[in-house]
Amino acid sequence: MATAGREFFTVKTVSDALAGFRPSHRAPAETVALAQAGGRVPTAAIAARAALPGFDRSSVDGYAVRARDTFGASEGIPAYLRVTGAVRMGASAQDEVVGQTAVAVPTGGMLPPGADAVVMIEHSQEAMPGTVEVVRPVAPGENVVRSDEDAAPGATLVSPGRPLRAQDVAMLAAAGVSEIAVHAAPQVTILATGDEVVTPDTPALAPGQVRDALSASIGVLIHEAGGLPVSAAIVPDDRDQLRDALAEAVTTSDFVVICAGSSVGGRDETAAAVASLPDSEIWCHGLAIKPGKPTLLARSGEIPIIGLPGNPRSALVIFRTIGMPLLRRVGGWSVDPRPGSIRARLSRDLPSAAGRLDVVQVRLRDDEAEPIFGPSALLSVLTAADGYVIVEEDANGLSAGDAVNVIPYG
Amino acid sequence: MATAGREFFTVKTVSDALAGFRPSHRAPAETVALAQAGGRVPTAAIAARAALPGFDRSSVDGYAVRARDTFGASEGIPAYLRVTGAVRMGASAQDEVVGQTAVAVPTGGMLPPGADAVVMIEHSQEAMPGTVEVVRPVAPGENVVRSDEDAAPGATLVSPGRPLRAQDVAMLAAAGVSEIAVHAAPQVTILATGDEVVTPDTPALAPGQVRDALSASIGVLIHEAGGLPVSAAIVPDDRDQLRDALAEAVTTSDFVVICAGSSVGGRDETAAAVASLPDSEIWCHGLAIKPGKPTLLARSGEIPIIGLPGNPRSALVIFRTIGMPLLRRVGGWSVDPRPGSIRARLSRDLPSAAGRLDVVQVRLRDDEAEPIFGPSALLSVLTAADGYVIVEEDANGLSAGDAVNVIPYG
Repeated sequence: MATAGREFFTVKTVSDALAGFRPSHRAPAETVALAQAGGRVPTAAIAARAALPGFDRSSVDGYAVRARDTFGASEGIPAYLRVTGAVRMGASAQDEVVGQTAVAVPTGGMLPPGADAVVMIEHSQEAMPGTVEVVRPVAPGENVVRSDEDAAPGATLVSPGRPLRAQDVAMLAAAGVSEIAVHAAPQVTILATGDEVVTPDTPALAPGQVRDALSASIGVLIHEAGGLPVSAAIVPDDRDQLRDALAEAVTTSDFVVICAGSSVGGRDETAAAVASLPDSEIWCHGLAIKPGKPTLLARSGEIPIIGLPGNPRSALVIFRTIGMPLLRRVGGWSVDPRPGSIRARLSRDLPSAAGRLDVVQVRLRDDEAEPIFGPSALLSVLTAADGYVIVEEDANGLSAGDAVNVIPYG
Repeated sequence: MATAGREFFTVKTVSDALAGFRPSHRAPAETVALAQAGGRVPTAAIAARAALPGFDRSSVDGYAVRARDTFGASEGIPAYLRVTGAVRMGASAQDEVVGQTAVAVPTGGMLPPGADAVVMIEHSQEAMPGTVEVVRPVAPGENVVRSDEDAAPGATLVSPGRPLRAQDVAMLAAAGVSEIAVHAAPQVTILATGDEVVTPDTPALAPGQVRDALSASIGVLIHEAGGLPVSAAIVPDDRDQLRDALAEAVTTSDFVVICAGSSVGGRDETAAAVASLPDSEIWCHGLAIKPGKPTLLARSGEIPIIGLPGNPRSALVIFRTIGMPLLRRVGGWSVDPRPGSIRARLSRDLPSAAGRLDVVQVRLRDDEAEPIFGPSALLSVLTAADGYVIVEEDANGLSAGDAVNVIPYG
């Protein structure tokens, strides 16, 4: 058994890791149909080929007019305009608006030639068949969406480096973009290791065995970050077998996750196996974070490798905090998402060492955040949590009653 | 063309709609493998069949001991214990700990018989071959995870009515649950309507035409809420065709979305077609929300139908605000997720009418939220936004400098 001094010789802070550990590999490009483009990350900006909406449209139900024909109109002295036609949806507006005339137009209908504004139906009434009474003036352009108001030709519709949201897909659809070049979902190999680890479908455990809790659950987080998890077989605590599995993983995947042994010996084996890969660098072995200190960040070529702590709870915290941002970059993200949080008050004091980032699981009761403690081996601490609080590296703990930002789970 | 008075005869508030419109249909159950269970909603609670982890384990690298043999130990007067063996990971602990002996144990290793605590390796050193020096006492149970500490037999591992998170999947894996009964993803038919609407792959638009921006983009939100979008063909503004398409949709889907006509006439046609369905009820036609007032909520049997406003921007806001919570319920959610938000200060005054919920799109610049305005027909307002602010029904607008909660987009 190793002595305590042997491990964690390259401890880094979480902010250093996120800023400094930047392997350059990116998932390759592929083309997807618009209906499959939500959440995918474009490889390049996409520009409008033509103006959008492409024609002047009414934004209300009403009457297309020349604005100046309505100037001075009021309830007392309405403007009377002769209705010379009606625009049909989806059709070209035929009837021209000339002096003292109006053409009925539905919301979204094309503005007829000659008109420069639309009177809302609520501000008009039919005075007699064929004549409309306008009781409020409109300014030129009022209730009209200009031909290029949503996008001018050549305008950027969506940018690379961030995933397409529903509204981005809507904009692309409106612009007639039906196929998009995006980064492929990064293939992520998960290597579970450990002589004690057996598959989840093992009905009864022999003494000392544990089921692999991480392959499936880290897979959920990989999906959430836009990746495709690939589970390899469980690797026993044997340096050669681990090295062979790793050598295969870095050639077939975009990102590699090792669910490392939890003992010092297991961690040493992992580091040694990673170090034996071609063009490899162990960027850090140990992070100033609780839980999750025994984290390994490395690369082989430009493929990132993350070695997670052996405790499932620590492993899930680390993959969420470190692994997901790294994986998003491989998937083409150029910015990290700014997570939303729920403002709450701490129910009790929260000690923390300065220089270390603490991830504290909490239950939310109305506006109170109640920290949940327990050994880092316990998954039940995580399943009981509604979210977590991050105590930053420069903080010396928090006090009961302090306002905290709780990042909610799903 | 209808007069203004004809529409919105059953306007409800958003909170009334979310509380009161509750068709009872739920997506049926299906069984999925654990690796596919992330985000899925269990139909019933799942209990532990056996204790977890199932055996007493060490939570550190160290020496398993009888705690009382360490009482009084200090740097000055260490306790000397004879090391009689070592526990291997994944194997049953063989060597019993008796008086004044210790057995080496790795993190996660099984506690040997006779031991009741573990001394961390950092608090010990090898005094001579076969003897360890302990410099700090341990209490009974210290550095030990009890056999049933993560879950006692019969304890609830996961609850129905909320989606499985990564940690829930980890807990199920640890407990040997490899298949789970979950609600099927609700099938959602999207009906785009309008004589002016053409498919997104239409290369050039005739005057007055618009491409269907909603089928693909509402599909993104349906996926986000756990549903499976099914796009039907675009339905022209014809009551009979719309009724036929609706009658088909309510028999083949769990939830129906109509991207309704934007004009008063189009909306009237939609309501009339819905009203003609078997066992139908129009629960409201008009919501006190901006944008999105012309929203229709209805059911045929217990299948929910939502008629979205014709403007793509309003439609996306309404589907996010109203459609996604409704769809989650059909998918088995019994609680609404509490969204996280980003705290920011308003850059300018935000007028709002009391009694109406306003959804205001904002750009985030550091800690400032800058409202983005524009006609509700403009998608560019949404694509420029980083998130949105909800001005509640009881608020009379907000002032520049007020703190607001921005709900971020993805």
